Amino acid sequence: MTAPELDSLLKLLARLPGFGPRSARRFLLALIKKRDALMRPLGQALLDVADRITACHICGNLDAQDPCGVCADETRDAGLICVVEEVADLWALERAGVFRGRYHVLGGRLSALEGLGPQDLNIDALIGRAERAREIILALNATVEGQATAHYITERLAHLPVTVTRLAHGLPIGGELDYLDEGTLGAAFKARRPLA
Amino acid sequence: MTAPELDSLLKLLARLPGFGPRSARRFLLALIKKRDALMRPLGQALLDVADRITACHICGNLDAQDPCGVCADETRDAGLICVVEEVADLWALERAGVFRGRYHVLGGRLSALEGLGPQDLNIDALIGRAERAREIILALNATVEGQATAHYITERLAHLPVTVTRLAHGLPIGGELDYLDEGTLGAAFKARRPLA
Repeated sequence: MTAPELDSLLKLLARLPGFGPRSARRFLLALIKKRDALMRPLGQALLDVADRITACHICGNLDAQDPCGVCADETRDAGLICVVEEVADLWALERAGVFRGRYHVLGGRLSALEGLGPQDLNIDALIGRAERAREIILALNATVEGQATAHYITERLAHLPVTVTRLAHGLPIGGELDYLDEGTLGAAFKARRPLA
Repeated sequence: MTAPELDSLLKLLARLPGFGPRSARRFLLALIKKRDALMRPLGQALLDVADRITACHICGNLDAQDPCGVCADETRDAGLICVVEEVADLWALERAGVFRGRYHVLGGRLSALEGLGPQDLNIDALIGRAERAREIILALNATVEGQATAHYITERLAHLPVTVTRLAHGLPIGGELDYLDEGTLGAAFKARRPLA
């Protein structure tokens, strides 16, 4: 009884992360109510991104150009390479605006559970880039898997004269001690610094 | 630093119901990982639906044809009209497969809160259709607003010789008494029926 166009869109929507058949139907009807303001531009934007966005062959960032805007920017320090798990992490660091070097996106983390080994990550290219770098900043997630990945990369870089650093652990800005887990609180305590 | 294609897609995604900037970014990266299997077909399917699907001028159902498949189906009883709030409700009834008449989609419910009055709903057309019908089944939500809408429509139909019915209230199939609200339990008790 339903039109085939609706059926195939519903099937695709139901495959999206966090979606099921019911949420796909709700979503579809909400979109149809905003056909020109939202549905059509969204369809076109998805096709545009699918057609034009590629992963940078140097760092793995997503951009309409290759090398990406970060790698092509001569004002950014090529001697500093910040290693992240995913492009989302790169975006988060760019929003923070604290880093003016280059990036390296691993495309995941070492994970026995997901069956991801070193060969599944963009690590060999990192070793090659590290030969010409002063500092490698491991901005990996503070999870068991992220830290295992950091440890593995540190070992792989041990033969090079490059400095390897990681992000500090501590109290988030605006965070309350009472709500913080013991691990973070312990790390923040040990890494205490003199008041300037 | 981000490509304009990504930026405009992120802005559109962030406007979707239930989405914010962070979920839009996660969603976008998940889609890019399934570029050919999901992202491109989804974009195309959204454009197809936006271009081809219209609301039926008789009943308000969404379909690639007008009149819709239900209204065009001569085997369905045109003397029975089932009134629903939204197209999603029509789909739900079609999935249940219990009804072989026609539908009428109001496009909402009377709602003082949302400022929706009778003129905002597809009610006048229903009165016109009711003149040639035997029974109008009000399959509206069992909410205060849905019931107010049902009451209003019943009054508007009072001068016609048509029978007006509503869905039964009661215990859902598989439901447990202990978990049921008192209103439903009371309604189910009052409407008790002899065991066949």
